[in-house]
Amino acid sequence: MVVHLVRFHDEHRAAWGVLNGATLSPLDGDYEHTAELIEHGEADWRAAGAKPGSLAFSDVEPLSPVTTPCRVMCQGANYRQHAIESGMNPDERAFNLFFDKTDASVTGPHAEVTRPAHVALLDYEIELALVMRRTVSAPTTINIDNLHEYVFGITIGNDLSARDVQLPQGQFLKGKSYRGFCPLGPVLAVLEPQDFSLLDDLELRLDVNGAPRQRDNTANMLYRPAETLTELTEFCNISPGDVLLTGTPHGCVATSPPPLVRRLATALLPEDKLWASFIKMNKRKPYLKPGDVISASIRNPSGSVDLGTQRTTIVAPSA
Amino acid sequence: MVVHLVRFHDEHRAAWGVLNGATLSPLDGDYEHTAELIEHGEADWRAAGAKPGSLAFSDVEPLSPVTTPCRVMCQGANYRQHAIESGMNPDERAFNLFFDKTDASVTGPHAEVTRPAHVALLDYEIELALVMRRTVSAPTTINIDNLHEYVFGITIGNDLSARDVQLPQGQFLKGKSYRGFCPLGPVLAVLEPQDFSLLDDLELRLDVNGAPRQRDNTANMLYRPAETLTELTEFCNISPGDVLLTGTPHGCVATSPPPLVRRLATALLPEDKLWASFIKMNKRKPYLKPGDVISASIRNPSGSVDLGTQRTTIVAPSA
Repeated sequence: MVVHLVRFHDEHRAAWGVLNGATLSPLDGDYEHTAELIEHGEADWRAAGAKPGSLAFSDVEPLSPVTTPCRVMCQGANYRQHAIESGMNPDERAFNLFFDKTDASVTGPHAEVTRPAHVALLDYEIELALVMRRTVSAPTTINIDNLHEYVFGITIGNDLSARDVQLPQGQFLKGKSYRGFCPLGPVLAVLEPQDFSLLDDLELRLDVNGAPRQRDNTANMLYRPAETLTELTEFCNISPGDVLLTGTPHGCVATSPPPLVRRLATALLPEDKLWASFIKMNKRKPYLKPGDVISASIRNPSGSVDLGTQRTTIVAPSA
Repeated sequence: MVVHLVRFHDEHRAAWGVLNGATLSPLDGDYEHTAELIEHGEADWRAAGAKPGSLAFSDVEPLSPVTTPCRVMCQGANYRQHAIESGMNPDERAFNLFFDKTDASVTGPHAEVTRPAHVALLDYEIELALVMRRTVSAPTTINIDNLHEYVFGITIGNDLSARDVQLPQGQFLKGKSYRGFCPLGPVLAVLEPQDFSLLDDLELRLDVNGAPRQRDNTANMLYRPAETLTELTEFCNISPGDVLLTGTPHGCVATSPPPLVRRLATALLPEDKLWASFIKMNKRKPYLKPGDVISASIRNPSGSVDLGTQRTTIVAPSA
């Protein structure tokens, strides 16, 4: 049975518990950083998981199960339909697309997120997030047989993106890293060696104000975890508690026009006019605005893996 | 007088010393991470700086004065002529361009750097690197008067870049982060409050095999440190010992064709053919190849700030 961990606010500290249905069984130990839980908490979470829950999950404030500092690595255009809506042909993909977010963006699964004053085109991206287990500081071959040595568990990530910074300025890092732009949690599901095939059939669902926006399954992922992590180690160190967001499915607000339209527009319009027209056209679309509530969930069809539901409310900057 | 620190290999450990002319005066304390030196080493380096040097600098192997883990934040197109050679108009710049490198790229100032087997277009970028002094975890206004509270010192960075990954794939992070792609050092010059005006007149010089490639002065920097760090804190946390590379001057091998040529080529060629032609044309240019030696230095005209000379030898992957 997959163990479902939750980090939550308990009076003046952050505590951990095992989620069983609607109740939480608190762990005995204190684990300030996720790395400490990963490296020293196993006996504790196994014992807590065997006890009946003493807290109602609905009574606690869940926190990000990934603590900072941490690396937040990301994959782009990693689902078939999202690659198409981003203007790429998934059958001709020649490379795995990586970028990162700063850890300033990490926030809790029920936190309010401020839309910065200069951002009009705020978009959502539900993603399966892998939480890393161990230190890697050299190129390493990771395959389906040893993947469990490198990945500790999974949680929900939302790669919030200011498209009007990311796209016209070509700035993935800035446009995706404003404070609060990476809600994580609520559940960190620990994967044991026999559980890794579950990664191939997880349902991702994201709604805004109750209306469906994203629906897909990890079966449609293009570059899968083992090959992705192998390439990542060529240019990135990994520490316990780092996170890899594995890409978002289709259904984001931003889409790319067909290649021919893009090429003609690029030829006919100077770059500043091109992007001014992109922003003008996009302002009519249903980007996130203050007051919107995003709910995001990931589970498998049997419910044996259920990462819970993120509820993110977008708010205006405080005056 | 500006204190010039050097981290170096001393038998089985990394040690620190103060450079006076051609000799080093070792510090008494052990500082495994640069953050420890910054937070606890001041009395030690002040005392060592007052003593005559006991080691010849030429006899030691200098190490990166920035230890890992650390953040490596970067600015793009931040010098007038380099912005022009990158296809931008520096007088119409509307935004500061940020990206980052992973800390897997950090290496020493005399280390060999492997050109990965799949990389043909390896380019250099000398940069002034700011080494950060303190923790920042919220948006913060940094100005010329409080800049010394945030910046501990300066060193030389080389933002080595695989143009054939960075540009055709739009992957700044991957193309700039292969292991060894960020030589740092040799000298970490500590800036005291009265020294910050020195940042406005530093000469950057980079040669390949003794032939000049980059020559510029920090006077030609577009977005300067205080305003850059102020914006950075909107989307990035800072820890002591993190580094900000402030952009490279003109003289890189890669340049961008004029805007009209770019627009026509984009209209006439499918994207894969466009980049195939970019790579074919660029292969004739003097990109870095195994055996090349880069030397990079930064100093001011009076020599009161002298960050030493980086010597990086490019090597082929071991068989």
